[in-house]
Amino acid sequence: MNHIYFFDEGGADQKSLLGGKGANLAEMTRLGFPVPYGFTISTKTCLDFFDANSKFPEGLDKELNSAIDKLEQKMGKKFSCEENPLLVSVRSGAVISMPGMMDTVLNLGLNDKTAEALSKKTQNPRFAYDAYRRFLQMFGDVVLDISHGKFEETLVEKKQEKGISEDTELNVDDLKDLVEKYKIIIKTETGEAFPEDPRDQLIKAITAVFASWHNPRAIKYREIHDIPDSFGTAVNVQSMVFGNLSETSGTGVCFTRDPSTGENGIYGDFLMNAQGEDVVAGIRTPREITELKEEMPEVFNQLMDTCKKLENHYKDMQDIEFTIEEGNFFMLQTRSGKRTASSSVKIAVEMVNEGLITKEEAIMRIDPKSLDQLLHPSLDPKADKNVIAIGIPASPGAACGKVVFHANTAEEWVKKGEKVILVRHETSPEDINGMHVSEGILTACGGKASHAAVVARGMGTPCVAGATEVIVNPKVGKFTIKDKDIVINEGDIITLHGSTGEVILGQCATIDAQISDELNQILTWADEARGMKIRTNADTPKDAKKAREFGAEGIGLCRTEHMFFDDDRIGIMREMILAENKQEREAALEKLLPLQRIDFEDIFKEMDGLPVTIRFLDPPLHEFLPEKDKDIAQFAETFDLTIEQAKDRIKNLHEVNPMLGHRGCRLLVTYPEILKMQTRAIIEAALNARENGIDVIPEIMIPLIGKKEEFVYLKKILITTIEEVFKEKNTTIEYLVGTMIELPRACMMAHRIAKEADFFSFGTNDLTQMTFGFSRDDVAKFLPEYMNKKIMEKDPFETLDQDGVGELIKIAIEKARSVNPNLKISVCGEHGGDPASIEFFNANTFNVASCSPFRVPLARIAAAQAKIKVSK
Amino acid sequence: MNHIYFFDEGGADQKSLLGGKGANLAEMTRLGFPVPYGFTISTKTCLDFFDANSKFPEGLDKELNSAIDKLEQKMGKKFSCEENPLLVSVRSGAVISMPGMMDTVLNLGLNDKTAEALSKKTQNPRFAYDAYRRFLQMFGDVVLDISHGKFEETLVEKKQEKGISEDTELNVDDLKDLVEKYKIIIKTETGEAFPEDPRDQLIKAITAVFASWHNPRAIKYREIHDIPDSFGTAVNVQSMVFGNLSETSGTGVCFTRDPSTGENGIYGDFLMNAQGEDVVAGIRTPREITELKEEMPEVFNQLMDTCKKLENHYKDMQDIEFTIEEGNFFMLQTRSGKRTASSSVKIAVEMVNEGLITKEEAIMRIDPKSLDQLLHPSLDPKADKNVIAIGIPASPGAACGKVVFHANTAEEWVKKGEKVILVRHETSPEDINGMHVSEGILTACGGKASHAAVVARGMGTPCVAGATEVIVNPKVGKFTIKDKDIVINEGDIITLHGSTGEVILGQCATIDAQISDELNQILTWADEARGMKIRTNADTPKDAKKAREFGAEGIGLCRTEHMFFDDDRIGIMREMILAENKQEREAALEKLLPLQRIDFEDIFKEMDGLPVTIRFLDPPLHEFLPEKDKDIAQFAETFDLTIEQAKDRIKNLHEVNPMLGHRGCRLLVTYPEILKMQTRAIIEAALNARENGIDVIPEIMIPLIGKKEEFVYLKKILITTIEEVFKEKNTTIEYLVGTMIELPRACMMAHRIAKEADFFSFGTNDLTQMTFGFSRDDVAKFLPEYMNKKIMEKDPFETLDQDGVGELIKIAIEKARSVNPNLKISVCGEHGGDPASIEFFNANTFNVASCSPFRVPLARIAAAQAKIKVSK
Repeated sequence: MNHIYFFDEGGADQKSLLGGKGANLAEMTRLGFPVPYGFTISTKTCLDFFDANSKFPEGLDKELNSAIDKLEQKMGKKFSCEENPLLVSVRSGAVISMPGMMDTVLNLGLNDKTAEALSKKTQNPRFAYDAYRRFLQMFGDVVLDISHGKFEETLVEKKQEKGISEDTELNVDDLKDLVEKYKIIIKTETGEAFPEDPRDQLIKAITAVFASWHNPRAIKYREIHDIPDSFGTAVNVQSMVFGNLSETSGTGVCFTRDPSTGENGIYGDFLMNAQGEDVVAGIRTPREITELKEEMPEVFNQLMDTCKKLENHYKDMQDIEFTIEEGNFFMLQTRSGKRTASSSVKIAVEMVNEGLITKEEAIMRIDPKSLDQLLHPSLDPKADKNVIAIGIPASPGAACGKVVFHANTAEEWVKKGEKVILVRHETSPEDINGMHVSEGILTACGGKASHAAVVARGMGTPCVAGATEVIVNPKVGKFTIKDKDIVINEGDIITLHGSTGEVILGQCATIDAQISDELNQILTWADEARGMKIRTNADTPKDAKKAREFGAEGIGLCRTEHMFFDDDRIGIMREMILAENKQEREAALEKLLPLQRIDFEDIFKEMDGLPVTIRFLDPPLHEFLPEKDKDIAQFAETFDLTIEQAKDRIKNLHEVNPMLGHRGCRLLVTYPEILKMQTRAIIEAALNARENGIDVIPEIMIPLIGKKEEFVYLKKILITTIEEVFKEKNTTIEYLVGTMIELPRACMMAHRIAKEADFFSFGTNDLTQMTFGFSRDDVAKFLPEYMNKKIMEKDPFETLDQDGVGELIKIAIEKARSVNPNLKISVCGEHGGDPASIEFFNANTFNVASCSPFRVPLARIAAAQAKIKVSK
Repeated sequence: MNHIYFFDEGGADQKSLLGGKGANLAEMTRLGFPVPYGFTISTKTCLDFFDANSKFPEGLDKELNSAIDKLEQKMGKKFSCEENPLLVSVRSGAVISMPGMMDTVLNLGLNDKTAEALSKKTQNPRFAYDAYRRFLQMFGDVVLDISHGKFEETLVEKKQEKGISEDTELNVDDLKDLVEKYKIIIKTETGEAFPEDPRDQLIKAITAVFASWHNPRAIKYREIHDIPDSFGTAVNVQSMVFGNLSETSGTGVCFTRDPSTGENGIYGDFLMNAQGEDVVAGIRTPREITELKEEMPEVFNQLMDTCKKLENHYKDMQDIEFTIEEGNFFMLQTRSGKRTASSSVKIAVEMVNEGLITKEEAIMRIDPKSLDQLLHPSLDPKADKNVIAIGIPASPGAACGKVVFHANTAEEWVKKGEKVILVRHETSPEDINGMHVSEGILTACGGKASHAAVVARGMGTPCVAGATEVIVNPKVGKFTIKDKDIVINEGDIITLHGSTGEVILGQCATIDAQISDELNQILTWADEARGMKIRTNADTPKDAKKAREFGAEGIGLCRTEHMFFDDDRIGIMREMILAENKQEREAALEKLLPLQRIDFEDIFKEMDGLPVTIRFLDPPLHEFLPEKDKDIAQFAETFDLTIEQAKDRIKNLHEVNPMLGHRGCRLLVTYPEILKMQTRAIIEAALNARENGIDVIPEIMIPLIGKKEEFVYLKKILITTIEEVFKEKNTTIEYLVGTMIELPRACMMAHRIAKEADFFSFGTNDLTQMTFGFSRDDVAKFLPEYMNKKIMEKDPFETLDQDGVGELIKIAIEKARSVNPNLKISVCGEHGGDPASIEFFNANTFNVASCSPFRVPLARIAAAQAKIKVSK
């Protein structure tokens, strides 16, 4: 067969053909686990289906008929059989798991005849007609595109008519009546009768599952998770087992280890007498998996044994679905479990210790980006906090923001610059956009495996789920707390603690993250594995200290301009800028010298023994001048100017395109006295620090070089100044002089500049701006439209554009190393903290990547992964 | 010898060693012309001199002594000899002529003894002591650095004392007295007595001439004319002949053809009983060279014969200096004569016709940049003009501006944006800066070979010299006209006609230049020789017509945005910009469509049969919005907005770095309806034009492409729009779709973009901005300082930076041609009209260069020269 593969024909290595679910069902079948038999229609068939304008491709009809015949034979059941009818589930199964994003149809094969047959066979007419009712509803919704609400309304009417509140209170006749009513809905809404023929049902269901690959929430999910549209989804057709057949039936989902903490031990939920969707949808609140041990000890042992075997086989923590039908245990799914950053780390380290995986495999298991959530502040346990509710701790971390009740509102508010917490009774895939932009998620319903919890953990967004005291009323824009006199309106601030489940009124104090032993372990392994050094971009002793704690091996970029914005300095800075001649300028610089020297001394102290790269003043001078009328008035007074004069002075410094203007080394060329002052401050600070026993390695960096001549001119003044200081102090100290490479011209001239420089540091932010001709400040006017129209896949300021900017970097490195093979090459743009970019830097022989302090651990892991990938 | 070469040891091919003057003196000596004997100290020695801290280098002393011995022997004269003293001139002679920029000393060898000897020998004591007086003055000024004024004052006193006005009225005793007084000045000013020893004089004079290589005016001259500092100057020591010995002596300078018009025939001035400096300095008004025929027929014939022979030998028009000593004719100098653009063209063409040079040599003789002056407007001969004086037509062309009397004032006023005419009694090398910035030059004194005339012609600046009626009074800031009641104050406007010598009050009407037959001839030859096509950048039918007259082979860049600034369009444009949705925007575009279509039709008509490249809207939209308060008020009224709202709208469109912002194809991606309108206008216009019998080849160009995806997205919409028009009109037309390459990223991605494009047009202005990270609008804040500090040699917006930007272009072309070998490649930045850049484009296989209409002839010549150079 070309399109269809039975479960005993495939294996885990065929994910790209069979999808994740299908491949794992095949693998489990092969390994002898109790998997209900079935087959998978391949992802290739899905693509053929789209190519054929959403029609079954050549040969699929025929193969499908044969497959059904074979399945009937194997199961001893038959479609439409009045004794032993075959019922199947039809589920999507993409190559990369997209939980809940695409469609599923259960109980397919039911019709008036087979429902009656099922009733007889199970001796449970209520079960049979409830299944039939559910199937009609699901088929109507998913396959025939009839609003879910139409069926719900009828159900609610029926319950009102009977004066009951729970579905379970409906009797067989009620269900039969509902079946008839549902059929009428289908006829009315589609103009055609419900298809009684199971083969017809199956074709329609397969078509619907294929089509769901292109539903908006699936598209959005793929966008967020970088999954190509071209993968397509497989469809799994599997004979049904029923968790809702009786009180000895049930269903559950669980992880082989705790996906929040990484704790080794089964973790999940189950429900007796229920179908799988009941657990995932969060409509009924499920029970802790460990309770199954008392409920059905034998089944529980079977589950534990299965978990153990699966972990040993897959060498990873598994996320499984199982069903118990009348005491018989069936496996419906296994896959690598999604997990929080901290659990990912803990599991990886423990699996190394258990001998399951190697250190390198452990490193490769970590998503470097996920480390963010481990390193950012969490709630201060000692802080005063007004806890108004406690739910299930579903995704760790602390989050604070304004309450919103709709995904759309979340998106709108965030666009306006607000931070929001999305509060829902339960979330659904339609909420995906809003969840993505929210700081945190709170739901009143659902458990640890609910939609909200799974998605939030995947995003690294804190989440409290199943906070049952919370009563959400989106229509009037508020939520209340059961039995309490508390009303939270849209826009009020709350704080969530996703690690404890606490919901807190207002904003709450936070504390810095502690690096866990496991994280330290894996970072140490990463340090052993990687080639590149990781430094930090830090302008203050505080940042330097934080970065060093996170493992930074020096400062790769210390921006001196940030030192001039303090209240006690901005005035002197403005004096310098407004100086009418060199003498006045030098006088102002003289006042800045001791302040800057102290800054450097403090930073050297924090970085004792590590190199510190200091960049000269870079931004255009007008950035230091006031903008608002009030500030201008004060500024005028300070400098004894009229408002008009002050405005004139500011206007004189105005530039049409400041990014391309009088900044960087151009400032230093026109005002060498600035360079002299900063050089003096650096060297004097270094000498003072050394006197205090600090081991200092200053690396002096000139920004925005485009011509060798600029570098040579400034380097000469710099060295002369340093020699002066050496002479005055009667001592010397080692130092390096290097340059930023951030202009396309510098890349082209790298072979000339490299002859003069001790090191290169690529400023990939500016280089991206110049290469694309994009102003980072203005790009928002068109970049979103570029993403929408698929002209641009990624924001080039987040992930290095390897094709264009990367090509320039490669050329520059080749030219530079051809004349100066030992030239030290680093990167200090924001890309230094982006894993994909780090992979590029590693491949292109960078010696150092420098990033913001909180990104240092991420960069350590990413650098190790890059090295491991290359050496494979 | 290492340092010194006698005139019979060298030749014209040794210019770099002997300097231009020395090499030509040697050549003439070799050819048997009557050249007073002497020797040349090499340019290499000059460089050695500077290396030795301005001391004579190793061995020069000794060589100099030997050389003097040899010269004495050859001439039968001796330094300090009381019978037959040797006198010499000491002149600078750089590799590339720098007329008047460096120092000269004449009559060297005179002292009390030799003056008396000269007196006896010539039987002309007055001559001898006048020569002695002049020598002391010149030696004092040039060698001993004593202000010229000190000597002049004494001379004036003497004349007052005697009650006479002319130098010639001084008798021998007066001159002897002046000699004594001059010696006292020298003693007083330098603390040392005048050196009577001629060898001592010679050493000092050589030292002074070497040193004059670094005087400020020489440095400035080299800057203007791109002459490297590292060339150095040679020094020529030559035995004196005297044009001022008697009434049968004289001196002259002349050109073998008219340097203003190119007319074949001798052209110059002479003075009887005078030394050469008298002619050049413009102190005495000289006589027309043709008058020499009557004065001294034999000498005149000798001169004519010499001119003929020199031209035949050098195959170029010569600029010669000669002296007649008591009826004997001597050649002192020959060199290729500086000439105006038009004479350059005429001479080159005629020399081809005379069989002296080839067509290719003729093309290479033209300085493309000089053509500017031929093509810009000149005075309308029919215009009413108030001619207030007539001088010598010394450098052709018309110029108009405000009168200034000092070179410094000229510089200051021009910096403020004024156009000025520099008016001087006579100009001197100190005025060079001021002359360079002036529109035109007027002098009251001096002839066609005066400093003012020579320099002005070299610069292509119109000049009227020797306007003797003009009485200049710089101190009170005015000039008057002799015998007329006319006063022109500083700041008044005058017009000069450098081709007729007219000085006109006020501003005068001008007419377009006519292309001469000779220019047409050489341009035709150039067209045959060149490989690249030359097109024009033109946005209007008028520009297109002008460019076509100048030989443009199509339009390389038609900027559509320029069509939207007209009064009748800017309003609709603003409607379009302020549209709140696509419908409103489309409504405004609908109104622009017919206007734009007519624009294109008119341009197609002018370019009948030639290709027209049209670029879509490029600048950021806010450029179309008003800036001034008054305009904003009117704008607000038109659009029914409050002033606040209007300002808000404008502010919304503001960008931090508009050059890197929402412009070019980014506008078209966000508002495809603009692209649709413009595409429709182009194609509809082309179809209409064709119906009227016009042969149209539209080439549609998308600006600012950085990604293939941008181009593909827009091209698809474009083609769909064109297909729509074709369907509506039931016809089709050929067209091309190409892209600007103006971003570094586009260069890196050229192989991808080239697969989709019919042509590339390099926008070297933007590419230069992005590559350097220079904003053209802001670069003035630092570029001058970069030039001063020699960090930058040339403005990269004038001449393409071949190292950096050029490297990107080379990479782009290599990548592009690797996938699309027949891709048409052009340039449409301003560099398309710069000869050095054109050479680069030719060498890098560009198919087309496009430039402004007036630059088209320049580009035709430059492209031919580039091709000829490569094929050599």
